[in-house]
Amino acid sequence: MSDSVKSRGDPAGSDDLSFQKLAVIGPGLLGGSLAMDTRVRRLATEVAVWGRRPEVLAEVEKRGLAHKVSTNLPQVVSDADLIIICTPVEVMGDLARQMAPHLKPGVIVTDVGSVKARVVKEVGEALPAQAHFVGSHPMAGSEKSGLEAARPKLFQGAITIVTPVEATHPPALGRVKAFWRALGSQVRELHPDEHDRIIALVSHLPHLTASTLVNLVCNLDPNSLNFCGKGFGDTTRIASGSPTLWTGILRANRLAVAEAIDGLITELSKAKTLLDSEPDLEKFLAHAQARRDQMINERT
Amino acid sequence: MSDSVKSRGDPAGSDDLSFQKLAVIGPGLLGGSLAMDTRVRRLATEVAVWGRRPEVLAEVEKRGLAHKVSTNLPQVVSDADLIIICTPVEVMGDLARQMAPHLKPGVIVTDVGSVKARVVKEVGEALPAQAHFVGSHPMAGSEKSGLEAARPKLFQGAITIVTPVEATHPPALGRVKAFWRALGSQVRELHPDEHDRIIALVSHLPHLTASTLVNLVCNLDPNSLNFCGKGFGDTTRIASGSPTLWTGILRANRLAVAEAIDGLITELSKAKTLLDSEPDLEKFLAHAQARRDQMINERT
Repeated sequence: MSDSVKSRGDPAGSDDLSFQKLAVIGPGLLGGSLAMDTRVRRLATEVAVWGRRPEVLAEVEKRGLAHKVSTNLPQVVSDADLIIICTPVEVMGDLARQMAPHLKPGVIVTDVGSVKARVVKEVGEALPAQAHFVGSHPMAGSEKSGLEAARPKLFQGAITIVTPVEATHPPALGRVKAFWRALGSQVRELHPDEHDRIIALVSHLPHLTASTLVNLVCNLDPNSLNFCGKGFGDTTRIASGSPTLWTGILRANRLAVAEAIDGLITELSKAKTLLDSEPDLEKFLAHAQARRDQMINERT
Repeated sequence: MSDSVKSRGDPAGSDDLSFQKLAVIGPGLLGGSLAMDTRVRRLATEVAVWGRRPEVLAEVEKRGLAHKVSTNLPQVVSDADLIIICTPVEVMGDLARQMAPHLKPGVIVTDVGSVKARVVKEVGEALPAQAHFVGSHPMAGSEKSGLEAARPKLFQGAITIVTPVEATHPPALGRVKAFWRALGSQVRELHPDEHDRIIALVSHLPHLTASTLVNLVCNLDPNSLNFCGKGFGDTTRIASGSPTLWTGILRANRLAVAEAIDGLITELSKAKTLLDSEPDLEKFLAHAQARRDQMINERT
């Protein structure tokens, strides 16, 4: 391979990073941003993009994000060495089934879904034995979605969780991790079930809570929204995320999300009783402040 | 008055804006920022600052934010035309009682507290009849507090709610509104009870919810905090606010906050049942998205 590139985020350089042909399935915020950075960082010799809508593919082509675009899935995946599924989570299993008969032996397949147990099971089962699937979740979204929100360096500094299982091919895992590191991600490993439990707490629950806060305030008094400060705006920012995408995510992880909601309800009931005790309330707020500050400081 | 300045935010210019002497009580984030902008915009001929801690007053002096600083309350307030109480809400009543015997007839007194019913009652009752109190709540804080967080133009674009009651002196109300407008605020009027009910929903509840989310995640699995993305960081930003300040705020408005918590618990229970229905969940998320986007668009 003439333009082999070593991972910048992996000083050991133990994993061969470059791929001949990368196929991006779904040119939304994540898929579009991936295509951009892959080209800029020369992580693949060729980038092909599959999408459902010709007008979006035309935009991918216009912006020079891919060498080839097509609505024909077999055509896009048949000679790919790395396939990244960047569609809503609920259609990933179907797409994997559709691409399965057309894959090159040894192809590595990954995804960007916010839910992992279901995706790892469905996509893993759909693919043939000679295709190597590794689940990924780059935590690099925003409340925006679609190709128009795609931007360079979206993955720079973001955490990407990869979710190997017993059946995962170790070299494929290594190459997927190296790929995310080359895009600037901090890569961490979790079992898919552990991922879904943790992400229910730190992402899915906050999302549903933000939406619930907005709806509560609107329903009780629509006039209240005229008195919102920056605090309310930030707290509810994620409620501006795509309802369709998030319906798929929350439903695909609904058991863990329901459990997280129960946990929050229990904690809110406790917090309510603290309003009667100055020292207990201050201790509660101080504990949250200390943990959040620690989290932010460790991140930066 | 030689350097009389008309309100920039009030094109009618009907209210005389300038004051001879402004006294800022408490040089924290809000008090310090107020002193800065008042000088820059020449809204008062002289600015005096009262504080409890000499080292903070020394910093006020060093940064040139005031003509006079003192830990002696009577000295700072006795010749003031406008007094702005910028301390934690729970001490405002006490301070008003201490300053009451020393006030100049006709002085206008306001505050920056996030809770209004209690403050308007306590401060209003503490002051003599010839002092005119108008409650104010500039929604211009941040998760930071203290003089070190003070900055110019903090009030620019922020909403400031003023809370007149039947006893409020109309000219004093006009001058207080003009003052906030001159600092760049959008001024709105609410009754103190209405203010507290609305702010419980759009500020106090989100604050306590953010702290509760952080504590929930920590208690269930401290490791989860290693997997937080920007969404969790934004949703919980206000949980980094001062525990002492927020204990005072939440307790001073605890009935409305408790009611808001009950409302959120009910809504979260409903949201949980929506996880079983794709169309209902999507409708719920779409409703929240539309309302939040509308709110943000109207603000910018």
